[in-house]
Amino acid sequence: MKKTRFLTGITPSGTPHLGNYAGMMRPAIAASRAKDVENFYFLADYHALIKCQDPERVNRSTLEIAASWLAAGLDPEHVTFYRQSDIPQIPELTWFLTCVTGKGLLNRAHAYKAAQDKNHEAGKDSDDGVTAGLFMYPVLMGADILAFNANKVPVGRDQIQHIEMARDMASSFNHLYGEFFTLPEAAVDEQVATLAGLDGRKMSKSYDNTIPLFSTQAQLKKLIGSIVTDSRAPGEPKDVEGSALFQIYQAFASDEETAALRQAYADGIAWGDAKTMLFECVDREIAPLRERYNDLMAHPQEVEAILLQGAEKARAYSQPLLDKLRSAVGLRPLTVATTATTAKASAKTATASFKQYREKDGKFYFKLVRADGAVLLQSQAFDAPRDAGAMIAQLQSQPEILNQVMANLQLGDSFSLSDVELALKELAES
Amino acid sequence: MKKTRFLTGITPSGTPHLGNYAGMMRPAIAASRAKDVENFYFLADYHALIKCQDPERVNRSTLEIAASWLAAGLDPEHVTFYRQSDIPQIPELTWFLTCVTGKGLLNRAHAYKAAQDKNHEAGKDSDDGVTAGLFMYPVLMGADILAFNANKVPVGRDQIQHIEMARDMASSFNHLYGEFFTLPEAAVDEQVATLAGLDGRKMSKSYDNTIPLFSTQAQLKKLIGSIVTDSRAPGEPKDVEGSALFQIYQAFASDEETAALRQAYADGIAWGDAKTMLFECVDREIAPLRERYNDLMAHPQEVEAILLQGAEKARAYSQPLLDKLRSAVGLRPLTVATTATTAKASAKTATASFKQYREKDGKFYFKLVRADGAVLLQSQAFDAPRDAGAMIAQLQSQPEILNQVMANLQLGDSFSLSDVELALKELAES
Repeated sequence: MKKTRFLTGITPSGTPHLGNYAGMMRPAIAASRAKDVENFYFLADYHALIKCQDPERVNRSTLEIAASWLAAGLDPEHVTFYRQSDIPQIPELTWFLTCVTGKGLLNRAHAYKAAQDKNHEAGKDSDDGVTAGLFMYPVLMGADILAFNANKVPVGRDQIQHIEMARDMASSFNHLYGEFFTLPEAAVDEQVATLAGLDGRKMSKSYDNTIPLFSTQAQLKKLIGSIVTDSRAPGEPKDVEGSALFQIYQAFASDEETAALRQAYADGIAWGDAKTMLFECVDREIAPLRERYNDLMAHPQEVEAILLQGAEKARAYSQPLLDKLRSAVGLRPLTVATTATTAKASAKTATASFKQYREKDGKFYFKLVRADGAVLLQSQAFDAPRDAGAMIAQLQSQPEILNQVMANLQLGDSFSLSDVELALKELAES
Repeated sequence: MKKTRFLTGITPSGTPHLGNYAGMMRPAIAASRAKDVENFYFLADYHALIKCQDPERVNRSTLEIAASWLAAGLDPEHVTFYRQSDIPQIPELTWFLTCVTGKGLLNRAHAYKAAQDKNHEAGKDSDDGVTAGLFMYPVLMGADILAFNANKVPVGRDQIQHIEMARDMASSFNHLYGEFFTLPEAAVDEQVATLAGLDGRKMSKSYDNTIPLFSTQAQLKKLIGSIVTDSRAPGEPKDVEGSALFQIYQAFASDEETAALRQAYADGIAWGDAKTMLFECVDREIAPLRERYNDLMAHPQEVEAILLQGAEKARAYSQPLLDKLRSAVGLRPLTVATTATTAKASAKTATASFKQYREKDGKFYFKLVRADGAVLLQSQAFDAPRDAGAMIAQLQSQPEILNQVMANLQLGDSFSLSDVELALKELAES
């Protein structure tokens, strides 16, 4: 059975916190262990360049994020874990997709429109401060996905549009050049667990209320100590509803432990004691990961080696695919598929050649033309160039089928079927 | 003396005609032989994909154009002659430049605006039928030029804007990341010789009045025979002014021959005789080229080998440059430049680390931060991140200069100069 291929990009900016871990990394790593799936994880460092012009930060964050995922249990033997910038096929495919993507599609991207709206509100030019990078981001993302023909891309609701755009790009390319791309689908988890932060709001860098995943034990203790609680005294019953402390505990404790803390709340546990319980519970899970993380951070060459191996695995897929795509768009060694050309060039060896072209109606056609320019055969319209190409190939290799396919063809003025048969034979022999 | 580097792109679409040869190829090839210049010529096949979705045509045209230039005398030993799609650094640099290019700049590109105007006139949406490829074309062209740090780009008047855009991209990148790019200049030849076509108008594919450069001798004779003349009979004096025949002759004949034909016009030469003279004159120059052309077209593997060798020569420049650029933007092996990171990660070996960042004012800053988050040192604003980076590097390698650069720095609350000196020394030793 063919495995379903999942692809997940992680932009290396910022440092992961407990909320990222519980809401995203931990479930993703668990899911990656399933038998019927194949997982591609990549550090989207080309994407990072759109927003981050601090090279040290890009570099440092790539290491931190890679070490975090590995420490959290991502198995680079089981999944394909790589850095985007180690895959030269991605920028090349970005260009191919750029050429088949309508600009109008990109005009409608949410992130770009949000930037425009902000400018309008501020009374500025629509594109003020907008880089081409922000505008082209969906095409790079399309290349990330299509370079590996991923089936499913786990994303949040706000990213569904980008997957739809990647589908559009894949369809356009397939239509023009042949069926090379699987149409990817968004895998939206409707129940993404969010964790409360220090102040009770969702844990998020933008609220400055996070607990870093790999703080030291002392820092973790101190930060947990600073979680906002109400002022109920020891002995007073406490609400689990709306308690950030309880909610974080729940994300790390077993069901039994959670039930026990719920009871303790009802029984009036002191906040200090509850915080100690939370610290111990979180640290129990994080401590072994932290050790591995610190070890990886102290040995960046290990992380580098893992990413390079992952890139090799990834390229084993993207390289042959891009070879096919290059050939499909016409970027081929000149020694391939130039039969028609050389035939045309040296009138000694052949008298006719096929010409494939596109008309203003957007359809594709071919004709068989003699060296003196006379048209022997004219095709009807094809929707896709590959269909025209297929018929040319058939006529070249089996001139005798001409009769069977004449429904799709028209003889040139003053030529008979046997003229054409003769020309095809000469062409086949040349 | 450093040679001036010229770079010329040739889009492989269509077949070259006598007008292309006399107006562009012949003078360009003559200029390429000068001693004080270095010339890069490339077949812009990535560009061809914007407009041409016929793979056979892209492939065939690449061969035809390459063979034409070689047959016309371009010396691949003396110049660097390559195919754009053999240089993987070009699509990668395209992405780097995309991230530093304002979208507003691209909105103002003439070719894009022309497409929009056409849509407006037709009452269509601005971007109807416009691909992202057309829109992004100037960025790809910027990468073509900057990947080789070309000094001069020979272009027609209509292309000057693209060179200005490439300069803008180069400046933006240099400003953000350091001086990597030479600012390219347009080399506009104000006196491009145009040749008259069969009907007397400028020879151009769009007028369908061309004489293919490498038609057979018989075709050449026939086409020259079809050049439009007036109806003056043999013996009647004829005007050289406005005579397409005379004008083409002039482009291929010596001064003496031209003077002789001018006299023959005045003496009433018959049109048929004048056409024979023209045929002989053109064929004298083209015949040896045609032989070489037919030979190359019959041996595409030779052309392929020449282009691959050229690509190797080209990559010997673009590869090391891109290595530097990757490092400059932060795409580095994780084993490099992570001193600060590892220092931060393992509090055992170092207590402080530098953080470089950008504020909302658009300026660049750094601070020296202890493992516990306390700020030891805060820089003032830098216009460019490289200046901030240079000062960090200096402080790391020579902690003793701290005193001399304090004008640019501010001590953190409650820290003394000696606290900072200590931290810098620890950092240097770790």
